[in-house]
Amino acid sequence: MLKVPNHQVAGHQAGDGKLGPLVDDSGNFYKPLQSDDRGSKEVFFYTSFSSNTNIPNHIRRFFPTFHGTQLIEASNGSGKQPHLVLQDIFSGRLNPSIIDIKIGSRTWYPQASEDYIQKCFMKDTKRSSLALGFRIDGLQIYESEGSGFWKPDRKLIHKFTAEDVRLVLRRFISSNSFAGVDPDCTFASTIYGGSGGILAQLLELKEWFEHQTIFHFYSCSVLMVCEKESVVKEMSSGAEVKLVDFAHVVEGKGTIDHNFLGGLCSLIKFISEILTCSDVHTAKASLQDP
Amino acid sequence: MLKVPNHQVAGHQAGDGKLGPLVDDSGNFYKPLQSDDRGSKEVFFYTSFSSNTNIPNHIRRFFPTFHGTQLIEASNGSGKQPHLVLQDIFSGRLNPSIIDIKIGSRTWYPQASEDYIQKCFMKDTKRSSLALGFRIDGLQIYESEGSGFWKPDRKLIHKFTAEDVRLVLRRFISSNSFAGVDPDCTFASTIYGGSGGILAQLLELKEWFEHQTIFHFYSCSVLMVCEKESVVKEMSSGAEVKLVDFAHVVEGKGTIDHNFLGGLCSLIKFISEILTCSDVHTAKASLQDP
Repeated sequence: MLKVPNHQVAGHQAGDGKLGPLVDDSGNFYKPLQSDDRGSKEVFFYTSFSSNTNIPNHIRRFFPTFHGTQLIEASNGSGKQPHLVLQDIFSGRLNPSIIDIKIGSRTWYPQASEDYIQKCFMKDTKRSSLALGFRIDGLQIYESEGSGFWKPDRKLIHKFTAEDVRLVLRRFISSNSFAGVDPDCTFASTIYGGSGGILAQLLELKEWFEHQTIFHFYSCSVLMVCEKESVVKEMSSGAEVKLVDFAHVVEGKGTIDHNFLGGLCSLIKFISEILTCSDVHTAKASLQDP
Repeated sequence: MLKVPNHQVAGHQAGDGKLGPLVDDSGNFYKPLQSDDRGSKEVFFYTSFSSNTNIPNHIRRFFPTFHGTQLIEASNGSGKQPHLVLQDIFSGRLNPSIIDIKIGSRTWYPQASEDYIQKCFMKDTKRSSLALGFRIDGLQIYESEGSGFWKPDRKLIHKFTAEDVRLVLRRFISSNSFAGVDPDCTFASTIYGGSGGILAQLLELKEWFEHQTIFHFYSCSVLMVCEKESVVKEMSSGAEVKLVDFAHVVEGKGTIDHNFLGGLCSLIKFISEILTCSDVHTAKASLQDP
């Protein structure tokens, strides 16, 4: 049984006769191949990445597993269409908080058409990409059983300033992630910090990007995922980093992906600052304990 | 006595009635203030940088010392004009090999005028900036007492491809740095390598750029300097990294300079590869020794 994913925060969404990705109960994610060359480019990337023996296993885990392509009934009722079959990275998760972050101060690649470059250039300038080296493209943050998720409108997200971005990254790891409240960053050390936390994972990715010259990842997203309820119950935080969206990946040709790396380092700095800041708060609090 | 510098490889050059920097015998470098706002912006940068107590000393050494501004006779005969008084970083050097590398895939800052952005955008695309995250803006490489320096024409430098850049970075540390000869990379381990070498210095800078959010350095250059003759004589290699040209520095506003950092990491990758490659050669050669 194919169905519309519960936890999609960005990109084209299926439903109401629209074309979008679908999932099944076995943990597969079916992404329709985009009709222009983006579809074939993403297939090319996954095929080439899967078979490339130079990708270390500890890096491979940041990418959804690829199971080939398949003709399935498209969500818009247009009949059987080719889809990428990928790992459903949210399969088995109950209430995941998710932030989709498009990395890079520019989302266009030098070989692109002038029209495409112009379109991306304008978007990168208007959004936070140019200033921060990344932008938030979608998010859902779990608040509570009663109020469910905070999932702001696309239009609101498109207006995010540097300060809004900082606030979202703090709400992501707070127990009081409600609008108008100063986020308490309670879960910073468990979700961002620690050896398996988001920061450690981003630093592992960064180290690879300092050396790898195989691919340049334009317009690709880092997904940050966690489960706040699990932290409360003292189970695993489910903190996970995944890379998605490879329709604009090009060959590295012997040069590192300085555009992606710069943006990734900028994101890392934002996360480290929140972590350091919350450490200071925790230290202060424990000093005040009797 | 003011005179035209012996070792200038990029930028406006004094002489023939043209305005350019001058040096004296006491180790000072006099840079005329550019008449548009670039001059005042560079003074502002040096003043602000000098007085900023958040700059660690081990980072300060990468910047020319600033001695204020002074009215001196301009090189173009236009009378007394305001000049920045800086440390002459080549003072006391005999035959320095120098590469001037403009860092960043873009040389323009978001707040610049549309005309300026357009001009830089075209240049960054034509030159290697967009592809590599940096470009070579000038160079002189010492060949021998007989033939002196290899100092290619500006027009030739502007056409440098990724492969040309790689070749220049290899000629910089070779004993046979002549045109048409495969560079032997003899001095790689002494000039690029070692605890005081170019790579170690670049990595130190990189570490600072991963954290500092005070300044964003657009259109700023990394100078790499060395003295090959000294290496031959088993004296210090004089390997030195300096940052110069701060007419387009803007405030960081709490974000790291991801544009500079990305380009710097790309340069570091080029240098590391040459070093690793030459290590392999040396290891092979010593294995072949009886």
